[in-house]
Amino acid sequence: MLSGGVGGARFLRGLREHVRSNLPGSQINAIVNTGDDMWLTGLRIAPDLDSIMYTLAGENDETRGWGRVGETERVSGELRAYGVGWPWFTLGDLDIGTHITRSHLLREGQPLSAVTDHITARWDLGVRLVPATDQEVETHVLVEGGELHFQEWWTRHRASLPALGFVQRGVETATPAPGVLEAIAEADVVLVAPSNPVVSIGTILGIPGIRAALAATSARVVGVSPIIAGSVVRGMADACLAAIGVETSAEAVALHYGARSAGGLLDAWLVDNADAAALPTIEAAGITACAVPLWMRDPGTSARLAADALAV
Amino acid sequence: MLSGGVGGARFLRGLREHVRSNLPGSQINAIVNTGDDMWLTGLRIAPDLDSIMYTLAGENDETRGWGRVGETERVSGELRAYGVGWPWFTLGDLDIGTHITRSHLLREGQPLSAVTDHITARWDLGVRLVPATDQEVETHVLVEGGELHFQEWWTRHRASLPALGFVQRGVETATPAPGVLEAIAEADVVLVAPSNPVVSIGTILGIPGIRAALAATSARVVGVSPIIAGSVVRGMADACLAAIGVETSAEAVALHYGARSAGGLLDAWLVDNADAAALPTIEAAGITACAVPLWMRDPGTSARLAADALAV
Repeated sequence: MLSGGVGGARFLRGLREHVRSNLPGSQINAIVNTGDDMWLTGLRIAPDLDSIMYTLAGENDETRGWGRVGETERVSGELRAYGVGWPWFTLGDLDIGTHITRSHLLREGQPLSAVTDHITARWDLGVRLVPATDQEVETHVLVEGGELHFQEWWTRHRASLPALGFVQRGVETATPAPGVLEAIAEADVVLVAPSNPVVSIGTILGIPGIRAALAATSARVVGVSPIIAGSVVRGMADACLAAIGVETSAEAVALHYGARSAGGLLDAWLVDNADAAALPTIEAAGITACAVPLWMRDPGTSARLAADALAV
Repeated sequence: MLSGGVGGARFLRGLREHVRSNLPGSQINAIVNTGDDMWLTGLRIAPDLDSIMYTLAGENDETRGWGRVGETERVSGELRAYGVGWPWFTLGDLDIGTHITRSHLLREGQPLSAVTDHITARWDLGVRLVPATDQEVETHVLVEGGELHFQEWWTRHRASLPALGFVQRGVETATPAPGVLEAIAEADVVLVAPSNPVVSIGTILGIPGIRAALAATSARVVGVSPIIAGSVVRGMADACLAAIGVETSAEAVALHYGARSAGGLLDAWLVDNADAAALPTIEAAGITACAVPLWMRDPGTSARLAADALAV
C-alpha cells in the first residue's frame, strides 16, 4: 500500500484485519509518505510514519484523531517557556520519546528505513512500514511572496493561505528506500490509500523510480477515493487539489492519477456508493471503477473496504 | 564563585540572599563545572548548570535533592521501550525540555555560554551562570581495563568501581568561556564552593588559563570545605579524593588546593566548627583558616555561611 498518515492508517488497520482472517501468511508493506517530515528543535518528526505506527499498535488517540492516547504535553510547555520551536505546533511527551529515538538513531548514521525498523519492532504491527525514501524530501508550499514547510501551512495556517503550488525539496536526487521497489515488483496487489493525492501519494510518486516500478509491476494497482460526494473525508486535501487545478471529486482524482494503460497509476478505483454516477466517466478513462461503502467508521468497515479493494 | 552542582547551588542561593540584603548592586558570577556534561540520545545534558539554575529558580526538588520539582518521567519510559539511552539514567520530562532547548541552540552554532544565557533568561536567577568552557571537556574515570564517562561511574556504579584516576577529555585544547577570565580578574572576591574538589572544582581549574587568572587576581580566594568531620557532606567525593591520594578531611582538601602565596588556589579556607582542631595545620600552610557552621540546612544557614566567607 502507498500511504499517507491518518486515512492510510485506518485503511491499513482494516487491511491487516482482513489479511489476518482471510490471507494468513501474506505480508503487508506500507510505503509511507515522508514529505511532511521535518526537523524541529533538533528532533526529526515523521507524522505519517508515526500516525500509522500508533494506529496499528492500538496506541493512537481515537478521539482527537492524531497522536498517542493518554498523551501529555509537559516537554512542549518547557520549549515554549524557553522560546524555541513553533508555539503553534505541540508535541506530546510520549510522541517526543519517539522523536528523540528516531533523531538519535539517524544521527548515529542509520538511514530512516533502518530506524523505522528499529522503532516499529517495539510493537507487533503486522505491517512492515517502509519510508518512501531515506533522503530528506520535504514538501514546501508556494504562497504569495515565498514558500513554507507543509506543516506550517497545514497546522499553523490550517491550509488557509492560498497555495500557488507544492514543491518537494530534494526530490530530484532522492531514491526509493530499500524495500520500496522490491515490494512493488513482488506485490500481488498494490493498493493506493485514500490519502491526500497531492502531498501524500503525490510525494511518494515523485520519488524517481517509483512511478516506473508501478508501471512495470505485474500486480494490479487499486486506489481508494479520498473524496466522498465532493468532500474530503478528513483533512484539507481540497485546498491541495485546488492548488494543482484538480476538482474535489472522486472522478477528478481518478483522472488525475490516470489509467495505468495510458501511462498513469491506476488499474482500478473504488468510489463511494454516493458517487456511483461517476463510474462511467472513470471507466471511460480506462480505469475499472466500482462503488462500495467508503466510510471507515471502525475496524470492521475498514476491513470490508480492504476486502472490496482486493476483490476488484 | 567556582561551583559544581548541588552543593554549589545551595551556597549560591545563600550568597544571593546575603548579597540582595547587604550588598545591593553587586553582581554574582558562577563559573560552573561542565565536566559532568554529556550527549545522551542526542541531548546535551549539563547537570551542574541545571542543578544551579533549577535551585536558584526555586524549581528544584528539595526532597529528592536533584532535578525539577513535580517532575514526571514519561519520555524516559518511551526511550527505555525503544531500547535507546542508558536505562539506569532517567531524565525527567521538564528536564528534557531544558536539554532539547540546549541541544537545539548548540546545533544552531551557539556556544554553550550563549546558550546558557538564553536558557537562564527565563528566570530571575540573580546570578549569572557561566560555563567554565564552551568546549566539550568531559570527565572520564579510569578503571581497571578501561575508562568510562563520569556519569556512568557516578550514577550507574554509585562510585563503587575502584577509580584509578580521572581525565578531562579535551581539556588541553579548551579555553575559558567568554566572561570567565574577566569575572575572575574584576572580582572583589572569588569564592570556591563546597563542591567536589576533584571532578567539579578540579575540572574548572584544569581549563588552561583559569589557574593563571586566579593567581593574578587582586581578589582574595576563599574556599569552603566540602568535608565536615571527615565525611563528605553529600555525594561520593570521598571516592574521588581517594583515587587521587587525598584524605577525606577538611585540612587535606585545603592542602590539596594549596596556598595562593605558594602557587596554589587559596587565600582562606572555611572549615566547620567540628574541624576547628585542623586550623593550625591549615594556617601553617599559609592559608587563613576559620571555623564556622558549615551545614547549609536552609537558605538562612546558607546565607550566614556566605556572610562568613565574605567576612574572612
